[in-house]
Amino acid sequence: MPWDFLFYFIYFLTIHIAMIILFGVFVRYNEESDTRWIEHRRRKNISTNLENDFYYRYPSFQDVHVMIFVGFGFLMTFLKRYSFGGVGFNFLIAAFGIQWALLMQGWFHYLDDDGKIKIGVENLINADFCVAGCLIAYGACLGKVSPVQLMVLTLFGVTLFAVEEYIILELLHAKDPGGSMVIHTFGAYYGLTISWVLYRPMLSQSKHLQGSVYHSDVFAMIGTLFLWMYWPSFNSAIADHGDGQHRAVINTYLALAASVLTTFAISSISQKHGKLDMVHIQNATLAGGVAMGTASEFMITPYGSLIVGFCSSIISTFGYIFLTPFMEKTLKIQDTCGIHNLHAMPGVIGGIVGAITAGGYQAAGLFVAIAFGLVGGALVGGILKLPIWGDPADANCFDDEVYWEVPEDEDENMLSSHPNMNHARGMPDA
Amino acid sequence: MPWDFLFYFIYFLTIHIAMIILFGVFVRYNEESDTRWIEHRRRKNISTNLENDFYYRYPSFQDVHVMIFVGFGFLMTFLKRYSFGGVGFNFLIAAFGIQWALLMQGWFHYLDDDGKIKIGVENLINADFCVAGCLIAYGACLGKVSPVQLMVLTLFGVTLFAVEEYIILELLHAKDPGGSMVIHTFGAYYGLTISWVLYRPMLSQSKHLQGSVYHSDVFAMIGTLFLWMYWPSFNSAIADHGDGQHRAVINTYLALAASVLTTFAISSISQKHGKLDMVHIQNATLAGGVAMGTASEFMITPYGSLIVGFCSSIISTFGYIFLTPFMEKTLKIQDTCGIHNLHAMPGVIGGIVGAITAGGYQAAGLFVAIAFGLVGGALVGGILKLPIWGDPADANCFDDEVYWEVPEDEDENMLSSHPNMNHARGMPDA
Amino acid sequence: MPWDFLFYFIYFLTIHIAMIILFGVFVRYNEESDTRWIEHRRRKNISTNLENDFYYRYPSFQDVHVMIFVGFGFLMTFLKRYSFGGVGFNFLIAAFGIQWALLMQGWFHYLDDDGKIKIGVENLINADFCVAGCLIAYGACLGKVSPVQLMVLTLFGVTLFAVEEYIILELLHAKDPGGSMVIHTFGAYYGLTISWVLYRPMLSQSKHLQGSVYHSDVFAMIGTLFLWMYWPSFNSAIADHGDGQHRAVINTYLALAASVLTTFAISSISQKHGKLDMVHIQNATLAGGVAMGTASEFMITPYGSLIVGFCSSIISTFGYIFLTPFMEKTLKIQDTCGIHNLHAMPGVIGGIVGAITAGGYQAAGLFVAIAFGLVGGALVGGILKLPIWGDPADANCFDDEVYWEVPEDEDENMLSSHPNMNHARGMPDA
Repeated sequence: MPWDFLFYFIYFLTIHIAMIILFGVFVRYNEESDTRWIEHRRRKNISTNLENDFYYRYPSFQDVHVMIFVGFGFLMTFLKRYSFGGVGFNFLIAAFGIQWALLMQGWFHYLDDDGKIKIGVENLINADFCVAGCLIAYGACLGKVSPVQLMVLTLFGVTLFAVEEYIILELLHAKDPGGSMVIHTFGAYYGLTISWVLYRPMLSQSKHLQGSVYHSDVFAMIGTLFLWMYWPSFNSAIADHGDGQHRAVINTYLALAASVLTTFAISSISQKHGKLDMVHIQNATLAGGVAMGTASEFMITPYGSLIVGFCSSIISTFGYIFLTPFMEKTLKIQDTCGIHNLHAMPGVIGGIVGAITAGGYQAAGLFVAIAFGLVGGALVGGILKLPIWGDPADANCFDDEVYWEVPEDEDENMLSSHPNMNHARGMPDA
Repeated sequence: MPWDFLFYFIYFLTIHIAMIILFGVFVRYNEESDTRWIEHRRRKNISTNLENDFYYRYPSFQDVHVMIFVGFGFLMTFLKRYSFGGVGFNFLIAAFGIQWALLMQGWFHYLDDDGKIKIGVENLINADFCVAGCLIAYGACLGKVSPVQLMVLTLFGVTLFAVEEYIILELLHAKDPGGSMVIHTFGAYYGLTISWVLYRPMLSQSKHLQGSVYHSDVFAMIGTLFLWMYWPSFNSAIADHGDGQHRAVINTYLALAASVLTTFAISSISQKHGKLDMVHIQNATLAGGVAMGTASEFMITPYGSLIVGFCSSIISTFGYIFLTPFMEKTLKIQDTCGIHNLHAMPGVIGGIVGAITAGGYQAAGLFVAIAFGLVGGALVGGILKLPIWGDPADANCFDDEVYWEVPEDEDENMLSSHPNMNHARGMPDA
Repeated sequence: MPWDFLFYFIYFLTIHIAMIILFGVFVRYNEESDTRWIEHRRRKNISTNLENDFYYRYPSFQDVHVMIFVGFGFLMTFLKRYSFGGVGFNFLIAAFGIQWALLMQGWFHYLDDDGKIKIGVENLINADFCVAGCLIAYGACLGKVSPVQLMVLTLFGVTLFAVEEYIILELLHAKDPGGSMVIHTFGAYYGLTISWVLYRPMLSQSKHLQGSVYHSDVFAMIGTLFLWMYWPSFNSAIADHGDGQHRAVINTYLALAASVLTTFAISSISQKHGKLDMVHIQNATLAGGVAMGTASEFMITPYGSLIVGFCSSIISTFGYIFLTPFMEKTLKIQDTCGIHNLHAMPGVIGGIVGAITAGGYQAAGLFVAIAFGLVGGALVGGILKLPIWGDPADANCFDDEVYWEVPEDEDENMLSSHPNMNHARGMPDA
C-alpha cells in the first residue's frame, strides 16, 4: 500500500512538471487576453472593450464550471459511504483534465502560425466540456476504481476526445455546440466499455454499500439541480453570438422543463404503490439537456424542444427501470450511476435529432463518437485491468475508507457496537 | 393507491401533450432569438450583437433560475423527513409551471400581430417569476398535500397570476419589477387561503415529523443563502437597461444586508436564554428582498433601502414568534413555512412603499393582488378539498414515505429497533 | 445570560440606527446607478447602456457574493456540532461588514466633491472583498468566540482594512486586484494574532467536538467548490475592462487547477496508509487562488500561473501537516480552520510574486498588510479579552448549543441514551 501511494505521488509530480514544461513551450494568451488587445482593438476598429469575447462568454463559462465541479461532483455523492470519493475524485480528475485538455484541444484547434496555442475564455469552456466526457465515464465506474485509474482514464479520455472532436467538428463539419455526440455519446460509451472490461463478478460483496441514505440523496439533488439549471448555459456557451446563444438557451430551457414532468410521470407508474424513485428524479430529469446538445442552436421551434425533452426522458427513465438491471445481468456491464440512461441514449437521440434537421454529416459524426467510445474504452479498459493500479477489492467497493481518512462519527460508533444493524440494506438500480 | 397513480400518470401525460400542441400552435422565437435577428439588427441599425437583450438579462435570468429551483427548493428541505418532497415537488411544479406560464403570460403580454407568442430571455424570467408565486403558496401547504394537488394549485395559480399581473401592470400601469405585490403578496394570500380551506384539525398526529434535524437545517441554509445572494438579480432582472438595473441591485443589496442584522437581533431576544432560532435566520433575513420588490428601481436612496430592510425584518421575525402560533390556533391557518411572515407582510410593506413613493395606482395594484390571492385561494382550495386527489392522512403528513421510495438507512434501522426513541420531539414554529 | 443578550440586542440596534443615519448623511447613487445616467451618457457621448459599468462587473460581483456567503459560510460547516455557527455567524458578520465597509471604503476612496460617497457596483464588490478579510480572521477563531465578539472583530477589521487598503493602493500605488496582500495576508495575520491573544490553554476540554462527521465534511465541500469555481471572478472582478479581466480569469483558473493536483499528491503521501485527508482537500486546493490575487492581471504567462498554483499548494498542504500542530503547541496559536496555511502563507507568496514581477512598492505593500494584521490583531484581541462579551467556556467551544436552539434529533436522542458512545472521537488537524 505505501508503495502504491509513493508511486501515486511520483505519478502526480511527473504529470505536474510535464504540464508546466508543456505550457511553457506551447501556451500563450490570445489577442483578447493579452495586453496586445488594445492594439488589436484599434487595428480592427472595435468600438468598445465589451466586444472582447470575455463579455459574451464569461457568464456562461462560470455556469458550465459550476456544472462540472458541483453538478457532476454532487450528483455522485448519492452513495451512502462514497460521498468523499464522489465529489473528491470528480474534483481531482476535472482539475487535471482541464489542463491536459487545454493542450490537446490547443494542438488540434488553436495552434497559431508561431506554433503556440493561444488561449482565451473559449478555451476554458472547451476544456471544461472535454472533461465532462471523462466525468461521465467516471459515473459508470464510480466506487470501483482507484484515483490512479481515474487519472489514467482521464489522460486517455481527454486525448481521445480531442481527436474525435477534431474529426467531427473540423473534418466532418458537423455541428454540436452542446456536445450530444462529442461529449455525452462518446463519454458514455467510453465509460461503459471500460466498466465492461473491468467487470467484477463478485461485486455483490459490497452490495450493502451500493445504496443511498436519506441525506446523501439530498446532497445528490444539489448536483442534479445545478446541472439542470445551468444546462442552458452549457448548450449555448460556445454558440454563435447574438441569436445563436439566445435560441440555444430557450430550446434547452424548454427541453429540460418537459423532461421533469415526464420523469415524474414515468417514475410514479414504475414503482410498487406508485412511489417516486429518487434515482429517476436525480438523473432522467436531465435527459432533455443532453438530447438538445446538438440541435440547441437550430431553428427547431419551441414545441420541437418540448418533444425532444419528452421523448428523451421517457427513454431515460425506462432505461433506469429495465435496461440497467438487464445490462448488469446479461451484458455484464456494471453502471453505477446509470450513465447509459442519462448520457448514452439521450446523447444518441440528440445526434439523431441533429441528423434529421441538419443532414448526413451529423449522422457520420454520431458514428465517430460511438466508435471512439467503444474502441477507446476497450483499449483503456485493458490498460486499467493491469494489476498495478491499486483498485479496491470487491468487498471494499463503494467505501471511502479505502482512500480517505473518514471521521469516526456517531453513526459509525453506534453501528460498530450494533453490528447486526449494518447489513442487508436495499440497493437501488443506479 | 395504484388507481390514484395511474390517474396521476394520465393527468401528467395529458398535460404534456396539451402543452406540446399549444406550443406548436402559439409559441415562436422572437426577433432576438430567431435567425431573423441579423436582418433585424441591420434594419434597426444596431451596431453590435451585444445589444441583443440576451446580454443584458441572461446573467440575471440564471440567478433567478437558481433562486426558483435551489433557493425555494432547499429552503423547503428543513423538515426532518420531508426533504425529498420539499426539493422534489418544488422541482416538479416549477418545471410544469414555467411551461404554462410561458403560454398564459404570452397570451396576455406577448401576443404578436400574427397571433403568435414571441419568446426571448425576458419571457423566461417572467415565467420563473410567475412560478415563484405558486412556490410561495406551496410553502404554506408543505407536507400536507399530494403532488397532484400541487399540480392543480400550480395550474390555477399561474392562470390567476397572469390575469392579476395583466391588470396591475398593463391596466393600472403600476410598477412592480421585483413583484412585491404581483408575486409575493398574491402568492402568499393564495397559499394561506388554500391552507385555511384545507385546515386539518388533527394535524398534531404527525407532530413528531414537523420539526427539523440538525443537518436538514443546514440544507435549508443552502436555500436561504442562494435566495439572499441572488435577490438583487431577482429585483433587477426585468428592470430598465442601464441605471435601472444598476440601482435595483444596490437597493436590494442594502435592504437585505439590513435584514440580516435585524433578524439576528430580534431572534436573540425572543428566545429563552437568548438563543438564536434557525427558523428566523432561514426566513426573516430575506424579508428585505421581498419588501424591496416594488420600489427596487425607484430613487429611494441607499438609506431608504436600509430602512425598508430594517422594518420588514422586524415585522417578519415577530410574525414567526407571535403570529404563526396565533394564526394556527385562532384563525385555523396552518402555515408550514411561515409564508405569512416572509412573503405576505413584507410583500404588503413593499406595496405600501411603492404607493408612498409612486402614487395611488400602486395602492390599487396592491389591492388587486390581495383580492386575487384570497378569492383565487378560496376557489382552488375548494377544488383541492374534493376527496379525489390522494392527499396524505393526518398521521402521514410531513412524511416522504407516502410519495417516495425512501432508502432504509442507518438511523431508521436503529430507530425501528429502538421504537421508544421515535416520539415526542420538539416542533419549531415553522 | 439574559442580560448578555439584551446588551447584544441594544448593541445591534444602535449599530443599525447609526448605520441608517450615516448612510442618510453620506451615501448616494453614483452617476451610473442614478437617473442622471441618461444625461451622463449623452454628455460623455456613450453609445449604449451596455457601457454602464454594471454590465462589465455584475456577473463577477454575483460570483464574489456567492464566495462570501456560501463559499466561506459552508467551508466553516465542517465541525460536527458547529455548522449553524459556521454558516450562521458568517452570514451575520458579512451582512454587517458590507454596510460598514461601504462607509469606510467610501470615505477613503469614493468621496465626491460634494462630500457624499457615490456608490455603484464596484463599491458592492469592494465591500464584499473587505468583509472577506474579516471572514478569514473568523476562521482562526471559529467555535471559540461569541457573536458579539465577532461583531467587534468585524467593526475594527473593516476599519483597519480600509486604512491599509488606502495606504497600499492609493499611497504606495501597489497593485492587488485579487487581494493577496490586502485581503488574505492582512485578514490572516489579523485573525491569528487575535487567536493568539485569546489563547485557551484548556481548549482540550471540548476536544470531542473539534472534529467533523461524515456529512459535515460533505457540506464543507460545497464551500470549497464554490470558492474554487468562482475564484477567477474574485481575482478579475475589479481588474481593468477588456484584456485585464480576461487575463486575470485565465491566470487564476490555471493556478487553481494546479493546486488541486498538488494537494491530492501531497495529502496522499502525508498520511498513514496513503489515505487522503479531507482537511487538505477542502483548503489547500484553494491556495493557488489566494497566491494569484496580486499578479492576476499581470502578464505572468499561463505556465507561470501553473507554477504559482503548484508552489502555493505544496506549502499550504505541508502547513496543515506540520505547522498547525507546531503553532498550537509552541506558539500558542489555536487556528481552527488553518487560515495560516490557506491565507497567510499563500497570501505572502502572492505578495512576493507581485514584488518580483512589478517592483518594490509591492514589497512595501506586503509589509504594510502584515503590520496592520499583527498590530491590529493585538489591539482588537486585547479588547476581546475583556470578560464582558459572553464567550463560551472551554468545555462549550465548538458547540452550537450555546448560541442556537438546536433541534433534538434522532442521533442526539440516541446518544443521550447511549452516553458511552459520545466520547473520544478523533480530532483532525484543522
